[in-house]
Amino acid sequence: MLIKQPSVSARNTSPVSTARLVMQIMDKAGIRAELLYFGRNWVVEKGQQHETDNTQGQTCTTGQSKTTNKPLLEFPPIVYGEAKSKSNPHGKTILFYNHYDVQPEDPAKLWKDDPFSGRVEGNRIYGRGASDDKGELITRIKAVEYFLQATDGDLPCNVKFIVEGEEEIGSPHLRDYLLQYKDKLKCDVVIWESGYIDSKSRSVVSLGQKGILCVELNVIGPSNDIHSSHAVLVENPAITLSKIICSMVSQRTGKILIEDWYREVKGFSRKELMTIAQEEFDEEDFKRETGIKSFANNKTGFDAKRARVGEPTCNVSGLVSGYWGLGFKTIIPSTATAKIDFRLVPEMDPHTQFQRLQNHIARKIGLEKEGEPARGNKVEARFLTGEPGYRTPLDNPYVTPVVQAAKEAFNSSTISVSGAGTGPMYYFYEILEKASSICVGGSSISDKIHSPNENFQIDNLVKATKCIAKIIEKVGKL
Amino acid sequence: MLIKQPSVSARNTSPVSTARLVMQIMDKAGIRAELLYFGRNWVVEKGQQHETDNTQGQTCTTGQSKTTNKPLLEFPPIVYGEAKSKSNPHGKTILFYNHYDVQPEDPAKLWKDDPFSGRVEGNRIYGRGASDDKGELITRIKAVEYFLQATDGDLPCNVKFIVEGEEEIGSPHLRDYLLQYKDKLKCDVVIWESGYIDSKSRSVVSLGQKGILCVELNVIGPSNDIHSSHAVLVENPAITLSKIICSMVSQRTGKILIEDWYREVKGFSRKELMTIAQEEFDEEDFKRETGIKSFANNKTGFDAKRARVGEPTCNVSGLVSGYWGLGFKTIIPSTATAKIDFRLVPEMDPHTQFQRLQNHIARKIGLEKEGEPARGNKVEARFLTGEPGYRTPLDNPYVTPVVQAAKEAFNSSTISVSGAGTGPMYYFYEILEKASSICVGGSSISDKIHSPNENFQIDNLVKATKCIAKIIEKVGKL
Repeated sequence: MLIKQPSVSARNTSPVSTARLVMQIMDKAGIRAELLYFGRNWVVEKGQQHETDNTQGQTCTTGQSKTTNKPLLEFPPIVYGEAKSKSNPHGKTILFYNHYDVQPEDPAKLWKDDPFSGRVEGNRIYGRGASDDKGELITRIKAVEYFLQATDGDLPCNVKFIVEGEEEIGSPHLRDYLLQYKDKLKCDVVIWESGYIDSKSRSVVSLGQKGILCVELNVIGPSNDIHSSHAVLVENPAITLSKIICSMVSQRTGKILIEDWYREVKGFSRKELMTIAQEEFDEEDFKRETGIKSFANNKTGFDAKRARVGEPTCNVSGLVSGYWGLGFKTIIPSTATAKIDFRLVPEMDPHTQFQRLQNHIARKIGLEKEGEPARGNKVEARFLTGEPGYRTPLDNPYVTPVVQAAKEAFNSSTISVSGAGTGPMYYFYEILEKASSICVGGSSISDKIHSPNENFQIDNLVKATKCIAKIIEKVGKL
Repeated sequence: MLIKQPSVSARNTSPVSTARLVMQIMDKAGIRAELLYFGRNWVVEKGQQHETDNTQGQTCTTGQSKTTNKPLLEFPPIVYGEAKSKSNPHGKTILFYNHYDVQPEDPAKLWKDDPFSGRVEGNRIYGRGASDDKGELITRIKAVEYFLQATDGDLPCNVKFIVEGEEEIGSPHLRDYLLQYKDKLKCDVVIWESGYIDSKSRSVVSLGQKGILCVELNVIGPSNDIHSSHAVLVENPAITLSKIICSMVSQRTGKILIEDWYREVKGFSRKELMTIAQEEFDEEDFKRETGIKSFANNKTGFDAKRARVGEPTCNVSGLVSGYWGLGFKTIIPSTATAKIDFRLVPEMDPHTQFQRLQNHIARKIGLEKEGEPARGNKVEARFLTGEPGYRTPLDNPYVTPVVQAAKEAFNSSTISVSGAGTGPMYYFYEILEKASSICVGGSSISDKIHSPNENFQIDNLVKATKCIAKIIEKVGKL
C-alpha cells in the first residue's frame, strides 16, 4: 500500500523503496517503468536490474547539479513510465507529472490514527499523501490501465509518466532530471499532479502555479545562552529576529516591504481577470475549514480571488529560539531561527528575490530607521529552495479538451488561471520545448492536504480516474 | 553529593530528596534542621519523622496560596535550620537565605560532561548548581560548622537558615512560607544566597535585586497548521507574535514601549549614583565571556553600570511556532508562543505591570497604527510568575560589618547598590519586620551561572566560607 510508505522528503526517508513500489504498480498496470537515478553516472533501473548508462552520463561529467551547484550524490530517483499507442503512434503524447514524496506528518499527535495507516473510513481514505499526491498518481495509472486492459494493450494516444521524490521540498533536482532526460520526456502537454474540486463540486482546471523561495534566517547572538539579567546590555536574538520579520512584511496588508520585491511581477490580462471573477471561492466554507474568523486585510470577493492566484506572499512557517518547554528559563538565547516561504508569481526569479532579501537584511538589521549604525547580532539568510512560477495561456489548444473531460467526469468544471500553490511547472515549459501544463484532479479543501488527518474522498478518486481516461481519449483525437 | 541531585524546579524534579539531603548535611554540621511542608495542613518533617502541626495549619484553612490563589498541593518543601548562640543568646540573629533548586540544564549537548556530575577539574567544580546556589549554600553551612566544632557547639550570634526549592522559577510560594513561619524566621538581617567576585578579584557586596515578571504569549490562528499557499488570506500567528514583540520594545534603545511601564520606577539617590560610579564592571571581560562585540544601544561606562542595576528590561527567552526541524514545511502554523521575562526595579508591581501588558496587547494586536480594527488572531498572555524588586539602603547598620568581612576574606571588597538579577528580597522586608538583605558570596562571571558548564572556583569556595565566618563574628559584636 503506497500510503504506508513514510516517504517524507524533508527527512529523506525511504525514497528508493517507495519509488520501487510505484514502479511495480506501473508494471502491473502494463506501463513500462524504470527508475532514473542521478549520481556520478546516470543509472537506470529496470525491474531488479541496474545498469550504468555512460553515454548519458557524459553530459554531466562534473557531478554537479546545474541548478544548485551541489554535488550529485544520493537523492531520490525518478520513476519514469511509458505506454505507446499502437493505433496512433504518431499522435500526441501526454506526460503525467506526479510525485511520490509527502510532507512531514508533524504534529503526529493531532492525527486520529497512524499518519501512514491508509485506513478507510466511510467515503474517505486517510494518511499523509492520501490526497497529495499518491491518490492523484493512482488515478493516472488506473486510467491508463483501463485502456490497456480494454483494448489489448492499446491506447488512444501516447502517455509518459514522470514521478519525482522531492516535490514537497521544492523539487531541487527536477530541473536537472528534465535537462538530462529531455529527449525521453518529450511531450505535447503535461497533465499536472493535482487539481481540485470546489465547494460547488466543480472540477477546477488550473493553468498556473506560483513560484516559491524558501529561506532560513538565523540570528546569532551571545556564544552561550546567558542569564537574562544581562538583557540590559546584550541584544536579544529573538527580538532581532522579530524586528527583521516585522521589517519584511506588513501584518495589516500582507504587503512585502523588501525593496524592488514586486518589480517583475506579471499582471493579468483582461481575459484572465474575467476568468478570475468567474472562479468559485466559498469564503465561509474556507473559514469554517481553517477555523479563522476573517481574512487578512479583510479581503473579500474579487480581491480575495485575485490575491489567491496573483499575489506574492511572505509566510513564517517556523520559529525557534531559547527555552520553550515547561515553565520558563530566564536566559538570553544565543540564537533565533525562522523558516520563511515566499510565494512568487510569474516573472519573479527566486535567486534575484533572495539577493533582494539579503540586501534588505543588510540594510535593516538592528535599525529602527535607516542610516543608523549596524548592531551586534549577526544575521544569516540561507537559501533553502526556489522555483519560478508559471501560467499556461488561456488559448493553449489542450485547455478545451481537458476542461471538457473534467466536465464529463465531474458533471461540472471551471477554469482557474493559476492555483495558489507552487510546483515546478516552469521547468517543463523551459526545458521540454515549451510544453504547457494543465492541472486537473480530485482533491478538495476538506482533504486537509499538508495537515493532520489528510485524506482523499473515494468517490472523487473514481471521478478523477474517469476524467483522466477522457483526456487520453480526447487528446487521441487531436 | 548535592550537585548530583537534578533538582530542576522548572520540571519539579526530585525536590524532596534534594531537600532531605540538605537537611542531612545541616544535621551533620550540628545545625538543627527540619523540612517545612505546605499542604492541606502544615507538616513539619524532622529527620525521618513526620508530624502534623494543626495549630499553624489553622491560619491557612482555605488551602490556597495567598500570593497566587492556587491550591496548595505538593510543591517543594523548605529546609529550615537553626543554631543558637549559648554565650550570646539575646544577641542578633542572621537568617541565611539560599535555594536547593537549579535552572534546567538545557542545552545538554553543550556540556562537556554530565550536567549533574560534580566533576572537579583543576580549581573548578562543574555541574548545574555548582555555583547557583548549591556551592554558596555549602559555604554558609561550613562557616557555622566551623564555630560549632571549634567552640564546643557555641556561636558568636544566632543563625537561622531558609533554603527553598523554587527560586529558579520565581519563588512562587516563598511569600506564603514567610507569612506562615514569620515568627520562626524572625531575624535582624538576611544574608542572601549569592554574591559575586568582580574582574579585579574584589568581593561585591550587593544591596538590592530587580523584580521580575515572566509571561507566556500565545497567538492562536487557524485550527490546524494549514498549507502556506493560503498565506495571502490567513493571518500568520508567527508574524502576529513578531509584531507584538516589536511593539513592546525598541531593539535600538531597549526601551519598553508599553504605556505607563516606567510610571513607578524608583530612581537613585545621589549617594547611590556615586556608589554606582565606583562599581567595577570590566566591559571587555564581559564581552569576551559572552561572545558579544558591542553592548545594546552602544551603552558604555557609567551608563552601562547604571543600566545594569537600575533599568527595567524586556527579554524574549524562548520562541516556538510551526515547523523548525530539518528541511522545511510550507505551512501557516496554527499557533506561535513566546516566553518573555521583564526585569522590574523597586516600586514596580508585577501584577500592575501585567495588567499594562494586557492592555497594550488589546490595543496593539494586529495594528500597524492605533485606531484600526482588531484582526483575526487571538492573543493570550499568561502570567507565569512575578516578584517586586528591593534595595537595602546604604546606611543600614549591617552593611559596614559585611563589607569589612568581605574585605578580610577576599582581600578587597566593594558595594553595589543592586544586582542585575532577581530574587524575593522584597518579601523578607515586607513580612519579617523590615529585615534588610545583603548579598555576599564567591561566584564570578566565568562560573557560567544558568549556562552549560556551570562551575564554582574552589579557592573562592574557601574564601566565601571565611567571609561568612567573619560576618557571624562581627554580627556577634553588634
